[in-house]
Amino acid sequence: MPDVAAYAIDSPTGRYAKTTITRRDPGPTEVFFDIHYTGICHSDIHTARGEWGPITYPFVGGHEIAGVVSQVGSEVTKFAVGDRVGVGCFVDSCRECDMCRQGEEQFCTGRPGTVWTYNGVGRDGEPTAGGYSTGITVEQDYLMRVPDEMSLEHAAPLMCAGITLYSPLKRWGAAPGKRVGIVGMGGLGHMGVQISAAMGAETIVLGRSLAKRDDGLRLGATDYVSTQDRDAMKRLRGSFDLIVTTVSDGVDLDGLLKLLKAHGVLVNVGLPERPSSIHLGVLTGQARVLAGSNIGGIRETQEMLDFCAEHDLAPMIEMIDADRIDEAYDNVVASKVRYRYVIDISTI
Amino acid sequence: MPDVAAYAIDSPTGRYAKTTITRRDPGPTEVFFDIHYTGICHSDIHTARGEWGPITYPFVGGHEIAGVVSQVGSEVTKFAVGDRVGVGCFVDSCRECDMCRQGEEQFCTGRPGTVWTYNGVGRDGEPTAGGYSTGITVEQDYLMRVPDEMSLEHAAPLMCAGITLYSPLKRWGAAPGKRVGIVGMGGLGHMGVQISAAMGAETIVLGRSLAKRDDGLRLGATDYVSTQDRDAMKRLRGSFDLIVTTVSDGVDLDGLLKLLKAHGVLVNVGLPERPSSIHLGVLTGQARVLAGSNIGGIRETQEMLDFCAEHDLAPMIEMIDADRIDEAYDNVVASKVRYRYVIDISTI
Repeated sequence: MPDVAAYAIDSPTGRYAKTTITRRDPGPTEVFFDIHYTGICHSDIHTARGEWGPITYPFVGGHEIAGVVSQVGSEVTKFAVGDRVGVGCFVDSCRECDMCRQGEEQFCTGRPGTVWTYNGVGRDGEPTAGGYSTGITVEQDYLMRVPDEMSLEHAAPLMCAGITLYSPLKRWGAAPGKRVGIVGMGGLGHMGVQISAAMGAETIVLGRSLAKRDDGLRLGATDYVSTQDRDAMKRLRGSFDLIVTTVSDGVDLDGLLKLLKAHGVLVNVGLPERPSSIHLGVLTGQARVLAGSNIGGIRETQEMLDFCAEHDLAPMIEMIDADRIDEAYDNVVASKVRYRYVIDISTI
Repeated sequence: MPDVAAYAIDSPTGRYAKTTITRRDPGPTEVFFDIHYTGICHSDIHTARGEWGPITYPFVGGHEIAGVVSQVGSEVTKFAVGDRVGVGCFVDSCRECDMCRQGEEQFCTGRPGTVWTYNGVGRDGEPTAGGYSTGITVEQDYLMRVPDEMSLEHAAPLMCAGITLYSPLKRWGAAPGKRVGIVGMGGLGHMGVQISAAMGAETIVLGRSLAKRDDGLRLGATDYVSTQDRDAMKRLRGSFDLIVTTVSDGVDLDGLLKLLKAHGVLVNVGLPERPSSIHLGVLTGQARVLAGSNIGGIRETQEMLDFCAEHDLAPMIEMIDADRIDEAYDNVVASKVRYRYVIDISTI
């Protein structure tokens, strides 16, 4: 049973501290890999701080994980020692339900259901612990391969932020001839701009302010509009085929829906705590669509990594040492990061 | 200029009374047809009573119209005198915009935009007047052909109630192997049950009460559940591929969304006046979809008529004389009609 170093937090208001956790020896179809880099996702913060309900402490966050395989089980066929791999938001599922068979393991309806990378319970009955740690044991079918052209530190945030935007952009038809809006220019949004533009869509960022305009245009947006600019918003009415909003709170659903053409789609990937208000007539009159989207399955996540490699897309990251996780959390909450913190796991 | 008899209302609180209105002589590509039957749609009532905003009086309602061609313009190729035809919610559009070219004329973005059958303004600059009248002049491209097997009185309500349900059921995949819910067993819902079942989907009615259960089962539903029955609703959680709600007010969006599988779709065809509340997490967590739908284009409306004829589907109607429109309105508002009033236009 390999012991690994990790950073854990022991209460909703605690601070991260170095500790040791135990990973299981890899079973026949499992891989153990050394974690090199782990991104910090806003979900880590909500979970760690108990904002999405009570959790078990000590808690080790991190579901944007990239590293190098150092041990493989006897029946592992997909990976070898030395391979560069990544893990996202989940590490296992039933493999037998309709959703698993469709490659949508994040919606597993079987038992044990989707096993989340942290704050879950694995098949061994043990609580799962995330990537703020130096190594992890994972079933080979739940690992992604990091393309050769992609650095591990840039691969890490794609495991959640990348797939969260790629999946709805692909499903709902971002493509040449389409106008796509990305609401919010943060960790998710700045990947959305790149992916949408690479898919060939005319891509416009809808930000609260214009502070990140230059970055948006550099990443592929053709325009960057403030949602506070009433004239601009009026001018854009009825013009979008697809809008993806990455913002959790204070979203004016009716206002965004009115920007869509008939049959246009507004995808929400945020998880606001409070209920939202919507005039259904704005949907119905123009047969508009409001859709949710939640990461993606293993196959699609691999496809996203390959797409990003092919189009030379990468997150803009700020690398930090592991003893700065608390500070990073505060900065993420304050929208001060541009655009994703990545923990250099060698500093644990 | 043919004068035709009609029933008109002259104020939001007025009563319908017999009058005479003037239709234009059919232009080269236009058809004049004698109206035999016109359905009463709840939209007629909202419009007539000014509940959807101020309108011009006198007002002649009716956008579920069926009759027989009695005059054709010199260049009309699609119809001949004696043909059985129908008209729905609109009678013209620009024909050139993307939406018109896609056959989605109800979302016309050109000029003059979609010309609604009543409370609109035609190309001649005159206000449009609906089917509570003995004849109407319409462009041939905006007419449907009533299949031989279908009676005119049953064809009439399909022009709005039929297409309103057919379009979302088709677009969002009602088919064998799918479980479809129809919320509300009224003029719209009772057509939805039939169409969904004929498309091969397992169809369940979700009604406020079980009062119309027998009708629902006879029309093709495999089950009929009260939305007030908490146990039943809990049992159905996560089990539907598609739900179409025809109910305008008091709909519990979160509750209905929870009945859907991952990627399941809730379609709303109602137009509630007040904003609705929704927890976006219910959409996002399972990548569910909330869509609007608004009638259908000419091509799809014809397809729906042919589908209903092929599968022997028809609305259940109550035939009334034209002098009972006010009484019928009150009964529709009180949900007392089973399931669609049709005016016998020969009584005007």
